[in-house]
Amino acid sequence: MREPLEPLQSWVEGANGPHGFGLNHLPYGAMRHQDTAHLCVRIGEMVLDLHAAAKDGLLDSLATEVQRACQQPVLNTLLALGSSAWIPLRELLTALLAEDSSGATKTRLDWFLHFVEHCEIVLPIAPRGYTDFYASIDHARRVGELFRPDAPLLPNYKHVPIAYNGRPSSVVAGGTAVRRPWGQTRPVGGAEQPGFEPAAALDYEAELAFVMGAGNELGSPIAIGEAREHVFGVALLNDWSARDIQAWEYQPLGPFLGKSFATSLSPWITPMAALEPFRVAARARAESDPLPLPYLADEGDEEEGALDIAIEVRISTMASRAAGLAPMLISHGNTRGLYWTAAQMVAHHTSNGCNLEPGDVLATGTVSGVERESAGCLLELTRNGTEPVTLPNGEERAWLQDGDEVTLAGWCERDGVAPVALEECVGRVWSSR
Amino acid sequence: MREPLEPLQSWVEGANGPHGFGLNHLPYGAMRHQDTAHLCVRIGEMVLDLHAAAKDGLLDSLATEVQRACQQPVLNTLLALGSSAWIPLRELLTALLAEDSSGATKTRLDWFLHFVEHCEIVLPIAPRGYTDFYASIDHARRVGELFRPDAPLLPNYKHVPIAYNGRPSSVVAGGTAVRRPWGQTRPVGGAEQPGFEPAAALDYEAELAFVMGAGNELGSPIAIGEAREHVFGVALLNDWSARDIQAWEYQPLGPFLGKSFATSLSPWITPMAALEPFRVAARARAESDPLPLPYLADEGDEEEGALDIAIEVRISTMASRAAGLAPMLISHGNTRGLYWTAAQMVAHHTSNGCNLEPGDVLATGTVSGVERESAGCLLELTRNGTEPVTLPNGEERAWLQDGDEVTLAGWCERDGVAPVALEECVGRVWSSR
Repeated sequence: MREPLEPLQSWVEGANGPHGFGLNHLPYGAMRHQDTAHLCVRIGEMVLDLHAAAKDGLLDSLATEVQRACQQPVLNTLLALGSSAWIPLRELLTALLAEDSSGATKTRLDWFLHFVEHCEIVLPIAPRGYTDFYASIDHARRVGELFRPDAPLLPNYKHVPIAYNGRPSSVVAGGTAVRRPWGQTRPVGGAEQPGFEPAAALDYEAELAFVMGAGNELGSPIAIGEAREHVFGVALLNDWSARDIQAWEYQPLGPFLGKSFATSLSPWITPMAALEPFRVAARARAESDPLPLPYLADEGDEEEGALDIAIEVRISTMASRAAGLAPMLISHGNTRGLYWTAAQMVAHHTSNGCNLEPGDVLATGTVSGVERESAGCLLELTRNGTEPVTLPNGEERAWLQDGDEVTLAGWCERDGVAPVALEECVGRVWSSR
Repeated sequence: MREPLEPLQSWVEGANGPHGFGLNHLPYGAMRHQDTAHLCVRIGEMVLDLHAAAKDGLLDSLATEVQRACQQPVLNTLLALGSSAWIPLRELLTALLAEDSSGATKTRLDWFLHFVEHCEIVLPIAPRGYTDFYASIDHARRVGELFRPDAPLLPNYKHVPIAYNGRPSSVVAGGTAVRRPWGQTRPVGGAEQPGFEPAAALDYEAELAFVMGAGNELGSPIAIGEAREHVFGVALLNDWSARDIQAWEYQPLGPFLGKSFATSLSPWITPMAALEPFRVAARARAESDPLPLPYLADEGDEEEGALDIAIEVRISTMASRAAGLAPMLISHGNTRGLYWTAAQMVAHHTSNGCNLEPGDVLATGTVSGVERESAGCLLELTRNGTEPVTLPNGEERAWLQDGDEVTLAGWCERDGVAPVALEECVGRVWSSR
């Protein structure tokens, strides 16, 4: 399917316009339905119940297994079927919701359209794997400068798409409250014992998550040239981090409890198909940079392996909300500047034979840019808490305070093309228990 | 249920004797049945099909939800029900299989007993979480000596039960072939580019895995005094490691592809109840060691938080098998020497609010002792490959070669008590593709 560039018009009320949730987008989600969930797609401020539509026969032109997959509580079955299932589904949904759809179809579909604000939206995937990369070289360098000023970038960085295994059980839907964690912190002031207390250095990390479609068998790597078709879609992800817990625990085996108390994932998955118009060349390597090893090199990936997604981080506080202020912008970056592409992440992840599974989440790590105002976490913005930032309402923040709410927003635009908005990923910090 | 110490006698042929799979043991597994699996328990060389027994009404005295859980393809549902489900199930199975069981019961049960060698045994759990600790201080110290001779043990070690998230998708049942992984390795001899080749420094790690029963809600830590009842059972685990891949990739976020190509887990889970007679005091702290922080301290755990399980590592090679030799012993350790207990691992893992789920695997990390012959991996035994070991048949090994087969065995014994053998965890190295 060649994605149309021009804005498609839908008959659904409020679907057309520059809001980024038009007919060219159609992200997938799930809505609570009794004690289970129904898969759904979003169009404007409306949600189409895919489960109910399939049951009613509206998807009868698709393969039976696709119809059945649409009646599961999570996308995993559909993802496992691969792009030969998603593409016809997206084509059909686009046709059904297009303005030239027949009157009879519109009448039938109308039964299954709901206002998004009337629905309880839940995560449409059950990830068994959550891998967090470190794909922003500007992030890696700025963090490295804090801890190793003489050699900020480690020798492996430009060769290895660095990553670690995150904790899937604590991946929660955006909107879920985030409880400030307790944890051990480095002994201070000559103390013999470490502290054990609510984390003081609470941080967010603005990331893009790739959701895997069909996986691979254990022992069978995915070649970089085939990696793209294994990625189903994207969503914004906030990898909450307790920097004081992390700093004390991470040697020698990496981050653990400093991360695993919560990871917020936006519950609407934007299919890669909707992002085709926003593919751009991968970040150009400097003259002095090494070439990627052959298993990470692909001409097509170099030419259009990156995504032009602007990401903004906004914060609201108890005080700002009390004053009636809108969430305040504190940084803005773009995923096009990442050092590694999604295809490189997939190829690297499976290069040792490791199997990826449908619904697995591969996140980019903090998306930061060269300028400090494009840094995607407070660790960078405040230089590890030593230089607090002043928010637009005058408050200062070295780290997140209880009541602070972080909103990640993502936006794709290009002349003559319908814009696509990634669903915001929101999380508010609650005090520790 | 107070576990009986004396050896219980069963009517099942071959069940009685010193083999460690008698009526006091009863580990849980799963056997392939058409395109799904049936849960089962092992007694001697026989396997009781729990699914079929439940269907036949033999478990009718148990709560309906327990009967239903026994008819699932994995233990996870039973584990989620907690010890109020497992204890009556174990009591009933013990009674049914005891020599004073009625003739009618024996006749009915006989239908559901199979020779284990006639069954295809598969993993009885589907872990969504796999966490690997670093609980052996002797392992941590010996590895530290290789890389930081001046300060082998990091300052956090005696305070923090160090761990990292492993990769659950590549956890395979013992017996599964292990393919030598490809991977990036550090540039050598002035080369600008890293290597990308089959790992040369392939290693095993002998570990004990704890399988979680009922989990906890996100945000609700498990107190150490309650941790024990959340652990369902144990199995031997081999955390295969490619040391050359690991050495190049692990900074700054920890091990990733050097581990995720395969982790072998013995498919028979020994319930904690069977290990009650082998509980011993946790490793005594030295005078100079810090006290554990209050959230990791519990008197009962100190008195009997460790397990007296002897672990042996045996290896067979293409040459040794061709010569008709039995697998050759290369090291032997014991889990009683670990620095951290299972309860401390659970309490620490959840201390930040992280949720554990039924069937999650928490492994100890390499089980090593003070003496070098008790080191649970080649990294220690051969000092990072620099001092190859000579096998009993005269072959040398710095690292594992293709065709090498590693067998982990575990054994509990105590005077006057029926011994318990953990099911061996076996894996053979296949050449890279």
